[in-house]
Amino acid sequence: MAPRIAILGLGLMGGSLWRRLAAEGYPVTGYDIDPATRMAARADATTMSNPSAGRIVDTIPAAVADAEVAVLGVWVPDVEGLMHQIHETGFGGILTDVTSVKQPVQDIIDRKYPGTRWIGGHPMVGFSRQGYTSSHGDMYEDCPWVLCIDEDAKPASTMRDWLFLARIFTSIGARVVPITARNHDEAVARISHTPHIVANALTLNAAASPLGHLALTLGAGSFRDSTRVATSSPDRTASFCSWNSDALADELDQLIARLNQARMILRSGSNNTQALRDWLWPGHVVRSAWPPLPDNEVSFAASGQSLLELGHAGGWVRKVNGTQVVAVRPTSIPLR
Amino acid sequence: MAPRIAILGLGLMGGSLWRRLAAEGYPVTGYDIDPATRMAARADATTMSNPSAGRIVDTIPAAVADAEVAVLGVWVPDVEGLMHQIHETGFGGILTDVTSVKQPVQDIIDRKYPGTRWIGGHPMVGFSRQGYTSSHGDMYEDCPWVLCIDEDAKPASTMRDWLFLARIFTSIGARVVPITARNHDEAVARISHTPHIVANALTLNAAASPLGHLALTLGAGSFRDSTRVATSSPDRTASFCSWNSDALADELDQLIARLNQARMILRSGSNNTQALRDWLWPGHVVRSAWPPLPDNEVSFAASGQSLLELGHAGGWVRKVNGTQVVAVRPTSIPLR
Repeated sequence: MAPRIAILGLGLMGGSLWRRLAAEGYPVTGYDIDPATRMAARADATTMSNPSAGRIVDTIPAAVADAEVAVLGVWVPDVEGLMHQIHETGFGGILTDVTSVKQPVQDIIDRKYPGTRWIGGHPMVGFSRQGYTSSHGDMYEDCPWVLCIDEDAKPASTMRDWLFLARIFTSIGARVVPITARNHDEAVARISHTPHIVANALTLNAAASPLGHLALTLGAGSFRDSTRVATSSPDRTASFCSWNSDALADELDQLIARLNQARMILRSGSNNTQALRDWLWPGHVVRSAWPPLPDNEVSFAASGQSLLELGHAGGWVRKVNGTQVVAVRPTSIPLR
Repeated sequence: MAPRIAILGLGLMGGSLWRRLAAEGYPVTGYDIDPATRMAARADATTMSNPSAGRIVDTIPAAVADAEVAVLGVWVPDVEGLMHQIHETGFGGILTDVTSVKQPVQDIIDRKYPGTRWIGGHPMVGFSRQGYTSSHGDMYEDCPWVLCIDEDAKPASTMRDWLFLARIFTSIGARVVPITARNHDEAVARISHTPHIVANALTLNAAASPLGHLALTLGAGSFRDSTRVATSSPDRTASFCSWNSDALADELDQLIARLNQARMILRSGSNNTQALRDWLWPGHVVRSAWPPLPDNEVSFAASGQSLLELGHAGGWVRKVNGTQVVAVRPTSIPLR
């Protein structure tokens, strides 16, 4: 019997999850604070191949009633208020989210709702689009989906809840990555938050007087791609960068140190081509081998330790069989 | 009567130009140092809609014989050697190139071949692919194509040569941008060379121990796009960065200063969301208005001064009518 799932917040993330779970036949209940979004989703529900699976309701209590899992489909600043409303219903099921920072959210839960069956989550999908109207059912196919695990040994019940969620998300094609909240935040500072800051800095560099108009006219593929995420909402970018300030500032330190290396080579005189080429080479090798390819499938008993080892190695869970997971690690990329 | 053009070097740039000029009916002669490339191009010539227009020859003298224009389709390091070979034929026509730095090439010409009818050129197209097999005839449609003009007043004959080239390149759909070699190099340091350095630095940041494997697995759209050009050949990237060392090092200074601003905001304490948002906003506005749209068409008499004003404002020439140009400036993007 497929688990009953509530999705609270039907934006790009929550809306896409609701669509796909309904299409897969999960009894899934959606709620959004915006009546127009609920109306649009209700209209979509009638056209689904499985119209009885996806329902839309008008209140949070109605959404979580009888649900075994509640997914918070909201931004970080709205997590606390939504948790308050869910808590008031007496909901006792598994809770997870889709926000882009994990330790600050975990801290809120630990402080305000200790003992809650909370497992932080983060599907790594592009979000230059926003809102229910951009949502689509195949967004999570092959998408890395972080599900957090504590470093401390946790009671077996937590592992059961983790596997319960992992079974759902792998069933819609996601690559479930087990990792601590803190490691998630450090990794995401590197591969998402730093590129967002850099995109804005590169744009301002290009547009600086007196050659800004010329530079923007000459901008081609490398400018287009390296600055693309500067089109994202500054409110949202500021929000997740602020929540991840320490890890992001550390990554900017590292990036600036690397750029200083390149600058010193450029300033070292006219015969710097070979030194520049040597500086460029390792990044070229790593990026040319990206994205990582799955190595052979392995199957092992799920435990905090075995799963954290998997996530740390860049691996992901493909399938859950009882207390066993089927997983892959990436083929080796030579790291620095 | 369409001018006779020689293309020396049939890689991505030269090959694409040869294809398109032939398709437009220009009598265009192609040469490449690689016999296999000549063979492939010869085979393509027979299938063209205008098979008499595009020819392939086996020597440089044969290529430039009777040509009014010779286009050097080679990298910067090969310009000098190729110029020597062209010079030996006694070629007296207009010379131009497609390399990504303009002042160092101009310096070579001024030192070794003073009095040559040289007009530096640079079509701004992506070059993550390379070689004749990647070339295609519509690559220069709407492509900004820099044609250099000196700051000093130049004899009218130079303006005639400039207009001769501009007429050819606008006829295949390029946006001809008139600007000095030095301004070109500064602008390109901003919108191409800096993004190349940053792409490698971001990749190394992501791949750093101990979380490199995890970070590479979590990398999604922002990582993919911001690091894409790290897949380019490090030899080529090192070559154009080295030739543009001073301008590029200056741009890295500026970029590092901007990243330091962001880092200081991040380190300023927990309540930094608004300050981050204010820092992100100007780049967001500029990038969201990019690429620049053409404003109303204007027509004016071509002169060094009128063309440099156009290029400096981010404008481009659409068409050449005798000594008049039809041009557009971009609609206003609010710059910093």
